[in-house]
Amino acid sequence: MRGAVIYAPGDVRVEQREDPKITKPTDAVIRLAATCVCGSDLWDWRGINPVTEPKPMGHEYAGVVQEVGSEVRNVRPGDFVVGSFFASDNTCEICADGYQSRCAHLEYVGSGGAQAEYLRVPLADGTLVTTHSQPDPGLIPSLLAASDVLGTGWFGAVAADVRPGKTVAVVGDGAVGLMAVLAARQLGAERIIAMSRHEPRQKLALEFGATDIVTERGDEGATRIKDLTGGYGAHSVIEAVGNQESMMQAIRSTRPGGHVGYVGVSHGVHLPGEELFYAEVHLHGGPAPVRRFLPDLIRLVENRVIDPGKVFDLTLPLDQAADGYRAMDERRAVKALLTP
Amino acid sequence: MRGAVIYAPGDVRVEQREDPKITKPTDAVIRLAATCVCGSDLWDWRGINPVTEPKPMGHEYAGVVQEVGSEVRNVRPGDFVVGSFFASDNTCEICADGYQSRCAHLEYVGSGGAQAEYLRVPLADGTLVTTHSQPDPGLIPSLLAASDVLGTGWFGAVAADVRPGKTVAVVGDGAVGLMAVLAARQLGAERIIAMSRHEPRQKLALEFGATDIVTERGDEGATRIKDLTGGYGAHSVIEAVGNQESMMQAIRSTRPGGHVGYVGVSHGVHLPGEELFYAEVHLHGGPAPVRRFLPDLIRLVENRVIDPGKVFDLTLPLDQAADGYRAMDERRAVKALLTP
Repeated sequence: MRGAVIYAPGDVRVEQREDPKITKPTDAVIRLAATCVCGSDLWDWRGINPVTEPKPMGHEYAGVVQEVGSEVRNVRPGDFVVGSFFASDNTCEICADGYQSRCAHLEYVGSGGAQAEYLRVPLADGTLVTTHSQPDPGLIPSLLAASDVLGTGWFGAVAADVRPGKTVAVVGDGAVGLMAVLAARQLGAERIIAMSRHEPRQKLALEFGATDIVTERGDEGATRIKDLTGGYGAHSVIEAVGNQESMMQAIRSTRPGGHVGYVGVSHGVHLPGEELFYAEVHLHGGPAPVRRFLPDLIRLVENRVIDPGKVFDLTLPLDQAADGYRAMDERRAVKALLTP
Repeated sequence: MRGAVIYAPGDVRVEQREDPKITKPTDAVIRLAATCVCGSDLWDWRGINPVTEPKPMGHEYAGVVQEVGSEVRNVRPGDFVVGSFFASDNTCEICADGYQSRCAHLEYVGSGGAQAEYLRVPLADGTLVTTHSQPDPGLIPSLLAASDVLGTGWFGAVAADVRPGKTVAVVGDGAVGLMAVLAARQLGAERIIAMSRHEPRQKLALEFGATDIVTERGDEGATRIKDLTGGYGAHSVIEAVGNQESMMQAIRSTRPGGHVGYVGVSHGVHLPGEELFYAEVHLHGGPAPVRRFLPDLIRLVENRVIDPGKVFDLTLPLDQAADGYRAMDERRAVKALLTP
């Protein structure tokens, strides 16, 4: 099959790779209907995560089950499925509490590389969720979004305790931040403040349900949020970047007793204990347990209640994956969809 | 009146001070039935917080209203009242959300020094809670405990999302940690693991409702908690110390998706972002909004459902306040009650 492999920062090649096989009786192999490039893939592309050997890339996927292991019961060849980047048994105590991203038998699906024609998914019964029927091709981008960015933005909103009538701020205007705006709208927030200084992303944020745009960053951004909320700060703030400045911006934009939901993959962050103590906010986040939300998200997509697929503003054949990375790195695209 | 003043580390004197007066129409002055020494007072006694000038000490109080300002409506002279170390209006948006410790009009009651015969309490209507009737003298230690350590331990348990059937661990065996054990019991926890290596405190923890004692600290302590909880960690962990080791011990003792409630006043803590991200715990804490809980706590004390006053294992006349500090500093006493 064809699949994307990174050799060095800025060097992603789509090449012939071995077809994935069932290696355990709980595996499934799926044929991808679509895949895409994630903001977190750029950590490798930019050399911030070291690339020490050629590595298959991609961890977002939706497609048709091709083959299943002998113990798989919940999905069958021919089913259209969506799954998360983390494979989970969905039965352990931690999964039962909704934290499939920390399943006792966790496996990283992305190690096989989802920017490819086929993908092996471990723990298929716990990981894959089937659509109600074979989806209309127009729905595939939205189903693919559910695999990661929508599920992650949604978790950010839930972690930030977004509720009807509340004021929400979103730090970060990448795909996850934009999906967090969509999630906040669905969860009934009254006011949704997107923090962005990029006009095309501001526009998308407004389409997804933002009511206000704030262009200031850092402490200036936090001050602006306080100005907009009677001096108190937002009830809920979703952090979708993962660095020191964005975390502090999120914490300082939140009112006492409010909630920060952080889903930007943390890089080089140290939280000052005293400030956190007196801020008196709730903090929750981490790798999203997308599996918890997938059944609901798939239903919302199939019923055309939400259209998260709009976050893909560039579509390329898989063979041009590197162009997708480049466009996202240069912020010419929010998110690139790849068609195998 | 007589009141305690700190002059230097280890130098607390009870001396003649000016009687407090009504300075604003929203003030009350109360005559203290009892006061006490707080673990946080030891930061001054030990010289960890610098003592730059003589400072009145104490912030825990229960007693009888002596005089009220012209705008005070909720309490009258003669009422027996309990209040928190933070005065709050109890009407602003933040108070309405239950975070009176971050009230928009917050004032620190302790600046007047509650280790004294009389105390001025600002924002009396929002701050003071009256008992149902003049309390039996035997209840006064428990009512005094509600003013801070019980309210703080209770907030720790609520911040840690303690619920019926859950497993709770408590880091710290000071008065607040012990009160957190009591709170966890009242909130229905099934298993309460007190982390302590001091036999008299272990005994008190068991009296307050602990089901298990763990003597290991730091990462060894966290490993022991995991061993006791099927490898997962506790659902809820209450942190009642406030330093780097205790915070990391609390975070590492908590299962993914679990809750850390931290109420130990933070000193020199820096939380590593990446570890926090992948730990996937909830973090919440800060100075306890004791006012939120006071009506319930007073009712539980008056109905003799709880007996938090047992946490006072040393009672001294106010004039011997320094002996109370010394006994607590040397861990000969958990908490010293002072009778004016």
